[in-house]
Amino acid sequence: MKRVRETKHAGVDVALGSRILEGDRRALSRAITLIESTKQGDQKAAEALLTSLLPRTGKGIRIGISGAPGVGKSTFIETFGQHLSREGRAVAVLAIDPSSRRSGGSILGDKTRMEKLARDPNAFIRPSPAGSTPGGVARRTRESMLLAEAAGFDVVIVETVGIGQAETAVADMTDLFVVLVAPGGGDELQGIKRGIMELADLLLITKADGDLEIAAKRTQADYDAAIRLTRSKYEGLPANVMRVSSLRDLGVAEAWSAMKTLHAALKRDGTLPKLRQEQSRRWFWQEIRTVIGETVLSDKKLARYAARLEGAVATGEALPYAAARTLIAAMR
Amino acid sequence: MKRVRETKHAGVDVALGSRILEGDRRALSRAITLIESTKQGDQKAAEALLTSLLPRTGKGIRIGISGAPGVGKSTFIETFGQHLSREGRAVAVLAIDPSSRRSGGSILGDKTRMEKLARDPNAFIRPSPAGSTPGGVARRTRESMLLAEAAGFDVVIVETVGIGQAETAVADMTDLFVVLVAPGGGDELQGIKRGIMELADLLLITKADGDLEIAAKRTQADYDAAIRLTRSKYEGLPANVMRVSSLRDLGVAEAWSAMKTLHAALKRDGTLPKLRQEQSRRWFWQEIRTVIGETVLSDKKLARYAARLEGAVATGEALPYAAARTLIAAMR
Repeated sequence: MKRVRETKHAGVDVALGSRILEGDRRALSRAITLIESTKQGDQKAAEALLTSLLPRTGKGIRIGISGAPGVGKSTFIETFGQHLSREGRAVAVLAIDPSSRRSGGSILGDKTRMEKLARDPNAFIRPSPAGSTPGGVARRTRESMLLAEAAGFDVVIVETVGIGQAETAVADMTDLFVVLVAPGGGDELQGIKRGIMELADLLLITKADGDLEIAAKRTQADYDAAIRLTRSKYEGLPANVMRVSSLRDLGVAEAWSAMKTLHAALKRDGTLPKLRQEQSRRWFWQEIRTVIGETVLSDKKLARYAARLEGAVATGEALPYAAARTLIAAMR
Repeated sequence: MKRVRETKHAGVDVALGSRILEGDRRALSRAITLIESTKQGDQKAAEALLTSLLPRTGKGIRIGISGAPGVGKSTFIETFGQHLSREGRAVAVLAIDPSSRRSGGSILGDKTRMEKLARDPNAFIRPSPAGSTPGGVARRTRESMLLAEAAGFDVVIVETVGIGQAETAVADMTDLFVVLVAPGGGDELQGIKRGIMELADLLLITKADGDLEIAAKRTQADYDAAIRLTRSKYEGLPANVMRVSSLRDLGVAEAWSAMKTLHAALKRDGTLPKLRQEQSRRWFWQEIRTVIGETVLSDKKLARYAARLEGAVATGEALPYAAARTLIAAMR
């Protein structure tokens, strides 16, 4: 793969926006790089670009896909993405891997994982490098999602490994949250990350073929029972539990059909626009906290002060409210 | 009950601290009223008082008790509290009722609910009035808890009705979180607030007597199974599920014994001090958000600006990060 030399001057950045709107993948890729950059100049350019593109975002079906390592996420997305492509959909896959490092290797590795999809002209695959803060990764992924929508991708998949708070973040930036589970004995129910189930709109038991078919059926039944003990995302609308074989392309079309039906229903009854508004509001207040953190950390004196206050709070020497007021007063 | 006339001048407030340290309930009650006051002068006095008492806090066993309305929380706490009292413990009960209004009626009502305990010289009962923000209620309860510890109460119970985010807040300010569940058919498992189970250190099936004894046993078995599908608060330490009859005083001593054993174990292996430090740190960052909110709202121009920015974010006109930066910049 040839690397595009990234020359940056004002003229190019203006053009970048229109190239993205034309669906230019290279421009999209460049813009995501801009978003990921920690340089202040790049950040300003990214913000201006995103703000200019905002009116052209929001039209995609946003799907979060989560699951433990080895559950078959890449294989599923590879098959799933090709289904979407055959339907004439343009699909963008953004992968958050908290364990990955920013390197050509990681990006290459990711593209290799989904070889066919990576070559599909209707698809765009981009891993999100791990950042220093989970909040940072989440913001960059949200913003990349907006860029992908502006570039005309009508399905945006955000893939995440089930580590830490990544799932919650992904569930809070997508319309539908799909959890992948590998077949296992009934005993293994407790082995998966519990608490994620209640974020799920759809649970897919993977590898439902060959030797694992029977186990997959049993796992499906187990989760079907478990899901009834779990709070569902929408009152009275428990998550669907389905089986898929990504290798043999079984159940994948049905899964997509279930997603489309749910998405359309949520859109029709006004749940979806409300959900997105709430997500944006929460995002705003999360960013306020991020900005406070950044403001504090970018100021040596303030940073030292905050660390001292936090320490005093932890050891019970200072009252959290008083310490918070002291810090904010010092900021103003 | 005679109402203590609250005269406030500097001299009294200094005395208030030492009276609290002597275990004076009237002084404790007064100090909590000071915490709950929205007057700026009172808030300053409360902050000074709390800060001076901080070194004398932390010695209590902090127990959160939650459960849906009608599950028998008051009856349980009445019996439970008397057990503690007979053991020579001083017990403070702080009740958060998000639906209650600040009124003499509510306070009286609460004391009547736990008639015997309210008359017990070893007990102190105080409802937290509902505030305008859940965060506000949480802070006042945390701070009241600290005051109760300073006043020598060695068990502090924070009671909450299972509404909204109150449970999460209570679980995050206590050492042990006890969830009360009424007996019911197996089908009713899905009727309770799911997601709370994973906060629980102990699940108590109430009303395990008379006609309901068999149902209580079945419910216990159901929850015993369900708890195994739930992430436990401490890895490899699933919550205990026990039956109690508060009316006949059955199982209450055993429940207290289980709490003491767990608390001692958590203290011994260092989990408890770590938990409290983490709670305090989270509390600090929550307060920073509260303070930002207060700072914004107390300034008419800023408040209007924030509302406009939030609206623009919700409708997709503004980028959350950019809006957050704009708001913080306007604050400085």
